[in-house]
Amino acid sequence: MTDIAMITAAAARLKGRARVTPMLSSPFLDAIAGRRVLVKAESLQHTGSFKYRGAWSAISALAPGARAGGVIAFSSGNHAQAVALAAARHGVPAVIVMPADAPDIKLEATRAHGAEVLLYDRDREDRDAIGEALARERGLALIRPFDDPQVIAGQGTAGLEIAAQARDEGVTAAEVLVCCGGGGLAAGIALALEARAPGLRLRTVEPEGFDDTARSLAVGQPVRNDRLSGSVCDAIVTPEPGKLTFPVLRRLAGPGLAVSDDEALRAMALAFARLQIVLEPGGAVALAAALFRPDRIAGDAVIAIASGGNVDPVLFGAALLRFA
Amino acid sequence: MTDIAMITAAAARLKGRARVTPMLSSPFLDAIAGRRVLVKAESLQHTGSFKYRGAWSAISALAPGARAGGVIAFSSGNHAQAVALAAARHGVPAVIVMPADAPDIKLEATRAHGAEVLLYDRDREDRDAIGEALARERGLALIRPFDDPQVIAGQGTAGLEIAAQARDEGVTAAEVLVCCGGGGLAAGIALALEARAPGLRLRTVEPEGFDDTARSLAVGQPVRNDRLSGSVCDAIVTPEPGKLTFPVLRRLAGPGLAVSDDEALRAMALAFARLQIVLEPGGAVALAAALFRPDRIAGDAVIAIASGGNVDPVLFGAALLRFA
Repeated sequence: MTDIAMITAAAARLKGRARVTPMLSSPFLDAIAGRRVLVKAESLQHTGSFKYRGAWSAISALAPGARAGGVIAFSSGNHAQAVALAAARHGVPAVIVMPADAPDIKLEATRAHGAEVLLYDRDREDRDAIGEALARERGLALIRPFDDPQVIAGQGTAGLEIAAQARDEGVTAAEVLVCCGGGGLAAGIALALEARAPGLRLRTVEPEGFDDTARSLAVGQPVRNDRLSGSVCDAIVTPEPGKLTFPVLRRLAGPGLAVSDDEALRAMALAFARLQIVLEPGGAVALAAALFRPDRIAGDAVIAIASGGNVDPVLFGAALLRFA
Repeated sequence: MTDIAMITAAAARLKGRARVTPMLSSPFLDAIAGRRVLVKAESLQHTGSFKYRGAWSAISALAPGARAGGVIAFSSGNHAQAVALAAARHGVPAVIVMPADAPDIKLEATRAHGAEVLLYDRDREDRDAIGEALARERGLALIRPFDDPQVIAGQGTAGLEIAAQARDEGVTAAEVLVCCGGGGLAAGIALALEARAPGLRLRTVEPEGFDDTARSLAVGQPVRNDRLSGSVCDAIVTPEPGKLTFPVLRRLAGPGLAVSDDEALRAMALAFARLQIVLEPGGAVALAAALFRPDRIAGDAVIAIASGGNVDPVLFGAALLRFA
């Protein structure tokens, strides 16, 4: 399983390949939250989300022979684009299995990076089974979206940056709010912080009604979501916490938080107006919790991960009209 | 006048106060431009534009006695916010003279930073005369938007970063496209590049119909714009090139470029979709030239400054619907 040595090794492989994303802030957001708010803008990572870290980490960790045969991934969109571009930059083919209702912008971007895209029905088909069967048939290396030690190590490199950037900002004790689907980003960051910034405590943030991780943390074992579609935060809806990620979160994370779709959209509009960054709703839930759950958070400062910014322009424009 | 020593001194004063903004890129933008496109995202600077560099540089360079009496600035918006916040963080009062038709978001943000805002009519009143009279009456230090050696030095710190970041990207010969109003950013960057990256050549970019700098460069002496309102790129419309900035540009800049309002809006929509950043139209003209004037640009790579991201949400949403 992933440990700090794997995370620092991943950071060495990612150096010059992934971006060191900036830590942003605005006095307007501080005023809303009632404390300092630092926003780690992973939406500025290559392909518009943190997923590029894990994709690069996993593909670069494959043995050259396995890598040459190509890779396969299944994803609601951000992992798809990330694996597609990371594979292309390694010079190897990629097959991406995507839900048929994924935003057009994500389907089109994945194809544009040269990947072969196969569609499935998110409500009726099991993407894991589809992906694993295809991987066997075609001899492709499966790059899982979160339950893979090298993917978790790659996402953990964001945690190394947070530890250093928080220190530069004079913040040594704070909660770190992380948008959580399968928990790869949250688990990777939690492991990095445990080793490098023990005063920073990880909290997961999910959409209300799809808060499997928060409920699992509350009862101490994995529980499932009742449904898998119907949230505007589609990018971070997963059936249940990961097998590798949940034990890490159970050990290291504080109680999970959840926000409504409208709160995610409002945070998206505030990130537009006050940070000049583009977030997708699922990438804005941690910022939403930082802004709108002040009583559930401890400390003079809070760090929120803005995890992705691949959003349909019509949805984004409509949210600006409602909330900006 | 500003020189490289003043720029490096400004960089020392700005360290830890202004952000080192990232250099972004996307294979989608490279494909449109037909060459590598590197985007220096000054829209991610504090207050959403490069202006914070110049404001901090000028206020921090004042003698303590002069600074304590407070500062005054006149601006269409980005310089206003920048001076307001930089003054507040120095603990001194600020009076900002703004055009009555400036976007609400900029008026409101300037007031929220604690500044006193005075409005004037952009078509009928002379903001320089208003600002200078007020400065005299109230004993305020005037922070000019571009024709001030310490402001130009502050903007030049972006050029120091570009020189280093371009080298990190393996780019040693390229044109650097800079959104140009009064020319403070362009002149500061040109001076920094002359000293630190002589293979990088500066080009100014303006809105069509408001291309006073391009026409002035063509004839070798300053010429004025016929009108001062009517462009969606309001942030970078000025009467004529600056007295301090134009001689620098005449010596160091290549021929000026100009783009249409629609091209600026299209670049804004592409920056949203491909870089996940928010630009205002005037902050997108350099990117627009990089994407839509390929035949006017030389080299395998081009660097474009994204200079600001303070944009009305309704205008932004409408541009996404038309162009994204």
